[in-house]
Amino acid sequence: MASVDVGVGLLGYGTVGSAVSRMLAESGDEIERATGHRLTVVRALVRDPAKNRDFAPGDDVLTDDFAALRDDPRVDVVAEVMGGIEPAGGYVRELLRAGKPVVSANKQLVAREGADLFAIASAAGVQLRFEASVCAAVPVVKVLRESLVAENVHRVLGIVNGTTNFVLSRMARGGTYAEALAEAQALGYAEPDPTDDVTGADAAAKIAILATVAFGSRVLLDDVPYRGIETIEPAHVAAAASFGMALKLIGIATLTEGAVDVRVQPAFVENAHPLASVEGSSNVVVLQGDAIREVTLGGPGAGGIETASAVVADLVSVVGTSGTGFLQNDACWRELPRLDPAGWRAPFYVHLAVADRPGVLGHAAATFAKHDVSIAQLVQHLEGGRAALDLVLHDAPIGSVEAALDELSRSPEMLRRPFIAPVIAA
Amino acid sequence: MASVDVGVGLLGYGTVGSAVSRMLAESGDEIERATGHRLTVVRALVRDPAKNRDFAPGDDVLTDDFAALRDDPRVDVVAEVMGGIEPAGGYVRELLRAGKPVVSANKQLVAREGADLFAIASAAGVQLRFEASVCAAVPVVKVLRESLVAENVHRVLGIVNGTTNFVLSRMARGGTYAEALAEAQALGYAEPDPTDDVTGADAAAKIAILATVAFGSRVLLDDVPYRGIETIEPAHVAAAASFGMALKLIGIATLTEGAVDVRVQPAFVENAHPLASVEGSSNVVVLQGDAIREVTLGGPGAGGIETASAVVADLVSVVGTSGTGFLQNDACWRELPRLDPAGWRAPFYVHLAVADRPGVLGHAAATFAKHDVSIAQLVQHLEGGRAALDLVLHDAPIGSVEAALDELSRSPEMLRRPFIAPVIAA
Repeated sequence: MASVDVGVGLLGYGTVGSAVSRMLAESGDEIERATGHRLTVVRALVRDPAKNRDFAPGDDVLTDDFAALRDDPRVDVVAEVMGGIEPAGGYVRELLRAGKPVVSANKQLVAREGADLFAIASAAGVQLRFEASVCAAVPVVKVLRESLVAENVHRVLGIVNGTTNFVLSRMARGGTYAEALAEAQALGYAEPDPTDDVTGADAAAKIAILATVAFGSRVLLDDVPYRGIETIEPAHVAAAASFGMALKLIGIATLTEGAVDVRVQPAFVENAHPLASVEGSSNVVVLQGDAIREVTLGGPGAGGIETASAVVADLVSVVGTSGTGFLQNDACWRELPRLDPAGWRAPFYVHLAVADRPGVLGHAAATFAKHDVSIAQLVQHLEGGRAALDLVLHDAPIGSVEAALDELSRSPEMLRRPFIAPVIAA
Repeated sequence: MASVDVGVGLLGYGTVGSAVSRMLAESGDEIERATGHRLTVVRALVRDPAKNRDFAPGDDVLTDDFAALRDDPRVDVVAEVMGGIEPAGGYVRELLRAGKPVVSANKQLVAREGADLFAIASAAGVQLRFEASVCAAVPVVKVLRESLVAENVHRVLGIVNGTTNFVLSRMARGGTYAEALAEAQALGYAEPDPTDDVTGADAAAKIAILATVAFGSRVLLDDVPYRGIETIEPAHVAAAASFGMALKLIGIATLTEGAVDVRVQPAFVENAHPLASVEGSSNVVVLQGDAIREVTLGGPGAGGIETASAVVADLVSVVGTSGTGFLQNDACWRELPRLDPAGWRAPFYVHLAVADRPGVLGHAAATFAKHDVSIAQLVQHLEGGRAALDLVLHDAPIGSVEAALDELSRSPEMLRRPFIAPVIAA
């Protein structure tokens, strides 16, 4: 069939935008063969059109006037690669209302305002795609929506933040959190202000998006409790190793008995599990369902070129499927209740720093028993001259385990706040 | 938009066919939400319509008359889940010519006769999809064609045969090849006649299909030299472990300097590489390209329900994209030459069983040097009372290494045929 010219607008022309522009230019033939369309960047919105760019667009492409992009009749589809909630969100809404399909790489926008954005897209009858908003080049969204379309996915587990995984991988080879973070910053794997990564906030946005697609029910960032890695100590990492596990920051989305639970926290992952061996800044997502049992996807979860690769794939899918009924709609088709967060069940690892005197172990054991939590494995050892208990508990609701720990924390023999992490079995 | 009824025909109604039929019935709502189409099995070709089935189709669906399926105007798309070259190949050709899109789960058919089948599909203007022919539920074909559409994938590495990986995983925990194979057979992971798996022939068909899609150039099964695992000894497995590596059967497709090399053979995989930790019967494929660096996909590579999941995803993609220009065409768009097989380069591991007398080591070293092959690591030890040399060679063309080994093999001090495996670095 004859090739059709498709004009692409870009919101933003920074690292990702330049890479999208370069990739469309250099892979134009491949894309035309796959879709019958030739994609060309015709407009790009930037703050300063005069600034030097990694990959220069054609003449008159850069503009600092949003209306010039929105109203340009040559713009058939737009990629939002500027980031931030505003003005990006307002621009995306205007474009969708104007009938332009949009591809977004903006996880904060999708995780916070997805419900509204998809409602606007549906009303306007145009596509909104967001593969690049999660795990960059790892095609989790497409696999969930298309390859697993007939699959009841009931659990998503992911290492979805490269910075924290780099830090934890580094700590597994020795050293403190502060040392590992400093090394990550020196190597460019962590930002000068790493708050968004180390607190788990970044991972929470990503797992919220993945849970939404996997379960077909909206999960917003506010629905996701998260804990980060700032309180991880070498003793916790060593304890994981001593139990044949690895300490990882994991996003966990669970669909159980018709209710959804989504959370981010440090977890002990058994060494034989695919997530245990994920090193450095890679992202890996595990999708568990009825027929597929477990499908694992991994790769670079960040980076300008990697993110651009996902943006281009989404652009291609938009132009390839426009005019069909295929996946035009929102991924959400039901409203599932949230599981009571205290009711989420797992086996848990617990670390207790206790006074080294008679009766302490018995008191801990009795307190867990009182809350109906039973102990699977226990190691008592000396840590810096004090006693430490490493426990692996049998599967129990997190609320019961936390209640037992709260009670223990009030006793004078408990020297510090207990540390708790779910165990992910292989 | 209003739902459109789509009639599905099945060639075969065995384990996979029944599972497809069940999945279309049970996931009809999900599929309709994604595509605006309701897929229903209206005809299924079987040898014996009276036989009991895992999931019974509706009345009058089963037929033993191919013409009844081909000429049924309600059949909009057909899934070929019967296997074998004939009559499956003839049926698929007739259906494509009759304008019916086909989805095939048949790796032998696609790997052997793909060129002809895709030519017929293109001429008829209908789709031929084949996700289920490789690695069952692991969506490698869709990811290569759609998510990595603008990506220059230059290397595909895969553990694509679950039987051999189970046997090698078992040997890594101790025991001989015969013992591990017997256990795999007892547990149902290996066929009573395991020839197709253990020789590497099954893996060769799969890596041929993946290479074709990844490089856009036809690779047929006959283009793929393969070696299996029948000659693997406990000493080889132990040597891998002693070098910090795992012995795996790997399909390797390489695009280098405009030429393609595709092969299957046992390889030594460094422990930090994602393929090293693949246990049991899982399949894992690693895709290496410019922008994405490395994307890894893993999951169950076989099984009736798992294969059916991929068939259903392909059916959904066919109905979702028919009428567009999206991926209607053959994945092949160029004819790349084959690399001279002797010119394929890698670092190699070599195991030599030699007479324990003076000068043997020197002779081996001199022979490698003569063929311009240099030694990176060497361990000499006693093995069953005889001397054994384990060597890791620097990157060299396999032809040079084999020439050196041929020369060494002619010397009386060489007690057995040398064993050679490429090393896959992390």
